[in-house]
Amino acid sequence: MMNFKEELKKKAALVEEALERYLPPPDAYPPLIHHAMRYSVLGGGKRLRPALVMAGAEAVGGNAADVLPAACAVELIHTYSLVHDDLPAMDNDDYRRGRLTNHKVYGEAAAILAGDALLTLAFELLANNDRARPENIVRVIREAAAAAGTMGLIGGQVVDTFSAGKEIDESTLEYIHRHKTGALYRFSVRAGAMLAGAQEEQLASLTAYAEHLGLAFQIKDDILDVEGDEKKIGKPVGSDVRNRKSTYPSLFGMEYSRKKARQAVEMAKAALQPFGGEADFLRMLAQFVIDRDF
Amino acid sequence: MMNFKEELKKKAALVEEALERYLPPPDAYPPLIHHAMRYSVLGGGKRLRPALVMAGAEAVGGNAADVLPAACAVELIHTYSLVHDDLPAMDNDDYRRGRLTNHKVYGEAAAILAGDALLTLAFELLANNDRARPENIVRVIREAAAAAGTMGLIGGQVVDTFSAGKEIDESTLEYIHRHKTGALYRFSVRAGAMLAGAQEEQLASLTAYAEHLGLAFQIKDDILDVEGDEKKIGKPVGSDVRNRKSTYPSLFGMEYSRKKARQAVEMAKAALQPFGGEADFLRMLAQFVIDRDF
Repeated sequence: MMNFKEELKKKAALVEEALERYLPPPDAYPPLIHHAMRYSVLGGGKRLRPALVMAGAEAVGGNAADVLPAACAVELIHTYSLVHDDLPAMDNDDYRRGRLTNHKVYGEAAAILAGDALLTLAFELLANNDRARPENIVRVIREAAAAAGTMGLIGGQVVDTFSAGKEIDESTLEYIHRHKTGALYRFSVRAGAMLAGAQEEQLASLTAYAEHLGLAFQIKDDILDVEGDEKKIGKPVGSDVRNRKSTYPSLFGMEYSRKKARQAVEMAKAALQPFGGEADFLRMLAQFVIDRDF
Repeated sequence: MMNFKEELKKKAALVEEALERYLPPPDAYPPLIHHAMRYSVLGGGKRLRPALVMAGAEAVGGNAADVLPAACAVELIHTYSLVHDDLPAMDNDDYRRGRLTNHKVYGEAAAILAGDALLTLAFELLANNDRARPENIVRVIREAAAAAGTMGLIGGQVVDTFSAGKEIDESTLEYIHRHKTGALYRFSVRAGAMLAGAQEEQLASLTAYAEHLGLAFQIKDDILDVEGDEKKIGKPVGSDVRNRKSTYPSLFGMEYSRKKARQAVEMAKAALQPFGGEADFLRMLAQFVIDRDF
């Protein structure tokens, strides 16, 4: 068995180096926007989504390095959504990943534009690919847009934002999780696999894996917001309670939430049954998602 | 010679019908975001950019209907940029095209997300194309992202936003125009032509055309902000003066601005010299850009 933490670190380092290279240099004109973009992208983060893109490619016999631009694109989409979510008109958060949020450093106008620019750059990276077949690239871009759009990430964000302070039911909570977090996880694994030329049955198994993984991840995030260590998470805990957001723990209690997360991880692993050792990273990632304390 | 106004109306009607069809239905869940998106996109506008995409295809022997998704994508990118530009943190405008701005109707959070969603949908439309070769689609998406990003539209927006209230020189003003407006004009003509399988020399001529056209358009916009009729333009005139924005008229006076716009139109037309009657619409569009009073 591989050492998971070592492998995750190796993948994160590849991504870090690639992001540094793909982002416009800080002093390219106009510098303000490039500083703002880099501040949020290069400000840490677990890089789980890019790791999923790479692991998705590897699971079907592809090469992690060949899907690095797509891996970085997913991280840019994720980061843009955080930058916009943190804005005063949205969640109005001052801290993210242990540092001031983008608009706190660069102002609201720059933060709005930096988010826009990160989303745009993501599509440029996806299209700037000479290591995959054009048909596969076009399909990946179509799915990226769908995952990031109103039937995916933005849809989840809308329902989340406009549910704050209201009591919501389990189906609404699941909708939020499945869209706000799940859609991009799902896309990540699929993108890596599609670019590496996956068969449709492989894609279906990986999709099921990612859907369970995304749910486990989000429940664990909710749990950490209740009982996590602020220093490790990099943002104040208890923000869900303060913002009166419904979460798994608030709706169902800690015990049920933990059980639901464990079940999701088991189902994620079960979905990988058709794969051999080439999916070991994905298996260990599923376990990591609920074992983590940050 | 074709009747230009009739032909523009015909193209705009095609775009209107297609936008209506490509936008998610207003009541698709979550409805708020889809209402907000449709409000700004279906709220009028001259549809010049989509017409340019179609005319770019026609100039190289292609079919306008085949590039309708790309034509709509350009309009979505343009509209997203307006929705975000109008936000309180940016230009803080209450009116656009004769109606309340998006955030005035739906609130700031929805307007930010609606802009994000329009940008995302644009890339989905570009990728959702079975009438062009995948290599051409990938190239068009790469150029769309470049035109909309920090080396294009967003770059122009950044410099424009952070120059408000300051004296700027001609080269900064040209930078703003070339990026904020020019990049998308340039992309529009190129996208239509590329999807229709243009030769590189044809593409070069059309690119030169679009660059001159974009400049003429922006100078004319500046002129209309001074001496236009509010009812025809659909927004209050004099906003550049109120926001202390440098413009061609403010830097060089009306006479020089008019002359510069006329020269740009002549150069746009000259760039079309290699084309025959199939580029007549583009020729007449160049004239229209400075003759218009809205």
